[in-house]
Amino acid sequence: MASSVSTPRLRRSAPGGETVEHDSRFDRRLTEILACATDVFYEKGYAAASVRDLSRATGMSLAGLYHYFDSKEKLLYLIQKQTFSTILERLRERLEGVTDPEQRVRIFIHNHLEYFLANKKAMKVFSHEADVLTGEAGSQVRAIKREYYRACIALVEDLGRAKGLEWGPAEVRIAVLSLFGMVNWIYTWHNPRTDADAGALSTQMADMFLQGILKRKKRTHKTTQS
Amino acid sequence: MASSVSTPRLRRSAPGGETVEHDSRFDRRLTEILACATDVFYEKGYAAASVRDLSRATGMSLAGLYHYFDSKEKLLYLIQKQTFSTILERLRERLEGVTDPEQRVRIFIHNHLEYFLANKKAMKVFSHEADVLTGEAGSQVRAIKREYYRACIALVEDLGRAKGLEWGPAEVRIAVLSLFGMVNWIYTWHNPRTDADAGALSTQMADMFLQGILKRKKRTHKTTQS
Repeated sequence: MASSVSTPRLRRSAPGGETVEHDSRFDRRLTEILACATDVFYEKGYAAASVRDLSRATGMSLAGLYHYFDSKEKLLYLIQKQTFSTILERLRERLEGVTDPEQRVRIFIHNHLEYFLANKKAMKVFSHEADVLTGEAGSQVRAIKREYYRACIALVEDLGRAKGLEWGPAEVRIAVLSLFGMVNWIYTWHNPRTDADAGALSTQMADMFLQGILKRKKRTHKTTQS
Repeated sequence: MASSVSTPRLRRSAPGGETVEHDSRFDRRLTEILACATDVFYEKGYAAASVRDLSRATGMSLAGLYHYFDSKEKLLYLIQKQTFSTILERLRERLEGVTDPEQRVRIFIHNHLEYFLANKKAMKVFSHEADVLTGEAGSQVRAIKREYYRACIALVEDLGRAKGLEWGPAEVRIAVLSLFGMVNWIYTWHNPRTDADAGALSTQMADMFLQGILKRKKRTHKTTQS
């Protein structure tokens, strides 16, 4: 099942099945509904949120809402797909023409943090409801996530090769998932009024991460306790 | 509001207000209920879970359950308090007598990962429902969390001083919260069948973290983009 990695075109199928063209007004409205649904899922959690809550939040009737999507699950799918497609698309644009492997890892971190800080609610919804979707929708979202994870793995592997370091797959996996933890966890603590912005944060985190992994040729194998 | 950092003694007040003594059977049962509630909150999310779900999961009647706690919020409070009190208490025991600042940071990481991996469900519930509790219960849980966060800040500050590094408070904050991200995120990815155990994981993560922060005397201040 191939995943689309472009920003999903939000287009409805009319009840008869044919695609409705010239649907920019429809798309705009659906985008607004997605933003509103993100807020509602963020506040109440996906499981506890109802389409009725969304109706209150948007000021639209239930019937009016169901004109735009057919289930709460579909909304979660669209939010997740849009979020990860966008971040992946931007990453590709920013990596284009950059060949220095260290700089490419920095770009990954900056791109991720910038998007996360600008879309904190969507990211929390994405993190917390990662496993909710099942069937075809779940497969598609998992495919985009996997693609993003593999992009990061490849960047770190390229860096290791360029530096002549011999990292095993397990080591690269833990390094990359530690990085995801560092950058994803910010939704729990970042205060835009007092904490650094995406630029300064990504510099510090990239410094930490790169120094952390680049000195790891001769690992000390002592364990702390156990 | 002082936080109790010992493992909370699970004791009920009888309806009349007097404490019931010799309540080891009561405590045992409540501990079982907490474990069951953790599963239910883990599966359904706190907001969507009902005491009725818990009744199904425990095989106890609603009336029987309400004998042990007076609200769903109380259960979440007990789970969160027990979790963080335990991890903090173990940390103190393990740090006792250890003076090397680097080793103390390693102990923090190992203690955290060991507890997290052994209690993944509780940790997910803790992470996801961090802001649900309000009033006195919320204050108590936040106080224990703050104490734990400050313990880690102090360990990192001690290390910086020992190494003659001049870290500002913002830098230490981001380093510590990055570390929390690294170690907390594991509940989203760790597969006990294929991934390293707490000992090996904490060695790699501690290496990464320590190398990442200890080389940071002369920071490069270049930003990646923006």
